[in-house]
Amino acid sequence: MAKLTSRSEDYSKWYNELVVKADLAENSGVRGCMVIKPYGYAIWEKMRDELDKKFKETGHENAYFPIFVPKSLFEAEEKNAEGFAKECAVVTHYRLKTDPENPQKLMVDPEAKLEEELIVRPTSEAIIWNTYKNWVQSYRDLPILINQWANVVRWEMRTRLFLRTAEFLWQEGHTAHATKEEAIAETEQMLNVYADFAEKFMAVPVVRGIKSPSERFAGAEETYCIEALMQDGKALQAGTSHFLGQNFAEAFDVKFTNKEGKIEYAWATSWGVSTRLMGALIMSHSDDNGLVLPPSLAPIQVVIVPIFKGEEQLKQIDEVAYELQSKLKALGISVKYDNRDTHKPGWKFAEYEMKGVPVRIAMGARDLENKTVEIARRDTLSKEVKPLDNIEVYIQELLEEIQKAIYNKALKFRDENITKVDSYEEFKEVLETKGGFILAHWDGTEEEEERIKEETKATIRCIPLEGEKEEGVSMISGKPSKQRVLFAKAY
Amino acid sequence: MAKLTSRSEDYSKWYNELVVKADLAENSGVRGCMVIKPYGYAIWEKMRDELDKKFKETGHENAYFPIFVPKSLFEAEEKNAEGFAKECAVVTHYRLKTDPENPQKLMVDPEAKLEEELIVRPTSEAIIWNTYKNWVQSYRDLPILINQWANVVRWEMRTRLFLRTAEFLWQEGHTAHATKEEAIAETEQMLNVYADFAEKFMAVPVVRGIKSPSERFAGAEETYCIEALMQDGKALQAGTSHFLGQNFAEAFDVKFTNKEGKIEYAWATSWGVSTRLMGALIMSHSDDNGLVLPPSLAPIQVVIVPIFKGEEQLKQIDEVAYELQSKLKALGISVKYDNRDTHKPGWKFAEYEMKGVPVRIAMGARDLENKTVEIARRDTLSKEVKPLDNIEVYIQELLEEIQKAIYNKALKFRDENITKVDSYEEFKEVLETKGGFILAHWDGTEEEEERIKEETKATIRCIPLEGEKEEGVSMISGKPSKQRVLFAKAY
Repeated sequence: MAKLTSRSEDYSKWYNELVVKADLAENSGVRGCMVIKPYGYAIWEKMRDELDKKFKETGHENAYFPIFVPKSLFEAEEKNAEGFAKECAVVTHYRLKTDPENPQKLMVDPEAKLEEELIVRPTSEAIIWNTYKNWVQSYRDLPILINQWANVVRWEMRTRLFLRTAEFLWQEGHTAHATKEEAIAETEQMLNVYADFAEKFMAVPVVRGIKSPSERFAGAEETYCIEALMQDGKALQAGTSHFLGQNFAEAFDVKFTNKEGKIEYAWATSWGVSTRLMGALIMSHSDDNGLVLPPSLAPIQVVIVPIFKGEEQLKQIDEVAYELQSKLKALGISVKYDNRDTHKPGWKFAEYEMKGVPVRIAMGARDLENKTVEIARRDTLSKEVKPLDNIEVYIQELLEEIQKAIYNKALKFRDENITKVDSYEEFKEVLETKGGFILAHWDGTEEEEERIKEETKATIRCIPLEGEKEEGVSMISGKPSKQRVLFAKAY
Repeated sequence: MAKLTSRSEDYSKWYNELVVKADLAENSGVRGCMVIKPYGYAIWEKMRDELDKKFKETGHENAYFPIFVPKSLFEAEEKNAEGFAKECAVVTHYRLKTDPENPQKLMVDPEAKLEEELIVRPTSEAIIWNTYKNWVQSYRDLPILINQWANVVRWEMRTRLFLRTAEFLWQEGHTAHATKEEAIAETEQMLNVYADFAEKFMAVPVVRGIKSPSERFAGAEETYCIEALMQDGKALQAGTSHFLGQNFAEAFDVKFTNKEGKIEYAWATSWGVSTRLMGALIMSHSDDNGLVLPPSLAPIQVVIVPIFKGEEQLKQIDEVAYELQSKLKALGISVKYDNRDTHKPGWKFAEYEMKGVPVRIAMGARDLENKTVEIARRDTLSKEVKPLDNIEVYIQELLEEIQKAIYNKALKFRDENITKVDSYEEFKEVLETKGGFILAHWDGTEEEEERIKEETKATIRCIPLEGEKEEGVSMISGKPSKQRVLFAKAY
């Protein structure tokens, strides 16, 4: 297997090569759309199952709404419509017919034009709030706590596997509440669910914060987000949770009678994470040998590779390996025993390194004699020889240790790459030389934000919710600032 | 809650009312598309998880392919294209803009016309085989055993919730093999997976068979299917598994070098079941009081309803009920304790009957005294009073018994409604008076099949794979027939 371009040489090329070589995804024959390959999809399934469990534990149910949004519904909430109109796929016809000039070909049947165009959902607030209208009459019908796993389409011009694709998979929660306070509490709860998932499962440390007004979701009153830092010093928004106020309830006339008998509009939230998380996962931990996966999201946690000459030796190793495999499985560890004779051990080592399998166990003739195994950690690339006896318990502990080590490494990197700056000059210098997150004071105006973006390509990733709220003055206008905000160049 | 229209009065109306009143699904603001509500989606999730497990056990992996099929790919396999061209949603533009004549409105931006139209997938053979082209070089790359869970769109003119909708959810398996024999074995294996799932989990008995040539999937060499009988005597195709020969490999140039070093086209299968299964499930078991669910697919298997006057009584019941709930949960039974004081017990009884909860446990003050509970079965509507002690073990057995009873009831009904006929006159009479499946001889021609369909609306559901292969002569043409085939009017 040809080596990857190194991260230091070309980070972007490294990423693209890794995604393909680790069998995660590839570009398809459809502009901007990806094929998620089985190995990549298995990781996504693990993310999905874990998130789904958390959603259900916090009282949410899944449902499914149509993929199409009729134009008249699409345009009902003005800001949301404006935000997505420029990048949406539009269905205008419902039939093809044989091309009379070329009977081998098909053409759009002009007689099958839709009366009203349908937008392929870029997000589902419109179609869902148009449905909630019929579900809500009284405060007793609230809250509605629904999540949907679905595909969405945004006609992005520049696309990259997982990070920005025309079609992507995601979940979108859409909740309706009787009070503003309850809706805000929901928004915050789901932000914490995301942060917890990112840190505990993806091993990706995140900063929780709120977006500046110009970076809010189209139609939101407040957008909460989690921001992660990639190894190249660029930020990646890993999840968002929106407090939508009464905007959608007003646009779709979702009213209810409250406890006092008065009629009110319902309060909304929406929140989502997508296959973009795959990009965050890859770029947080992987190295020049390929993917590095935290054990909790690895489809294969342990691989056993026999090192043998001839069938007789393989038979002997098989016996020991299958026994170890079943001991590991009994502990809930997913383990693959790769005893194919079509590939050499060295090839297999490189393959499982590329695919980020956290632990590799090698077993040769000498190991059989000595009752030992060789254990290799993917994250540190370190190896050790250990007694075979009770090795499954050691492996179980090792997987937990790896999970922590990967997180701590990412946390250390992140913390070392948060810089406080107080002048715009320093800001530009840090951005240029070191990158990473920059904590600086901002005067709260869109003008200043826009100027910084134009001059440096850095944006306000969020106004952090945690940490000290240190007052100061803007590094540019000198106007007062209540707390530092987090800047970075971003994906 | 208003009663349902009875099945005998208007079966079709009964179905539509039940789907809505049991909170399974509803029509959306988008023509022909449905909203699957949380309770309906929870049942679908159980189906999906069980099928997914079976697919993985038989060596398949999940992946994800684009929702769009460029027109040039769509038309590459001629029969498949022909079969779906007349009912497909076509994306022609990628942007909306503000309507200059009405700035509140949006319109399709004529400058954002796609160079090539995109079809919203009605099925994914084209896009997937166009991908497999790059994955297959040698026999060592085969087989490819992939499944996809996805939404698809077919622009049906007459739609009905779950049974026929413009958008539906399904899974589609797409496999590639080195030999014809292996592909046929795969097709048959997946048919058996479907049949097993239908009978063991849905409690729906099915006939396994193959389709007559005119009823084959567009592009298939052979279509295998499972056919179920609904309570109104109409058949429902519950799943199909297709042997596609080399048609798609030829259309998309998927070639490989075989063991002998020769270049060959790969052999294909595809197989799918959809949210249509929800319709089969509903129509097989439910009654005039609402849904009847087999325990293995019931989101709530047991509901406990307290019968109380005043808070003090409720407190006493709560104590016993929560303990029973945790005992049942410990046995892996999903149980809901509904102690809301906003609804009367009678209302709750009707609600859980409508929703098909298999077992209802009622607990009143007298039960507390006597250490008993009242147990009601949804399938038979029978009630019994039982000692509370060790009741969880009884409930567990009862759920298994209900699962079997529901299946046996459906099997008895199905078997009583298979009629052998030997003349066309009898055929028409049985069809008119009794309905159900009819086993009759057919001469194997499309003409005869077409005539029967036109004159009676009955179609050949399948040529059964099981049962005695009794030779005879066609009931119409008198020509020889090797076995009886299964006719019915169908959904």
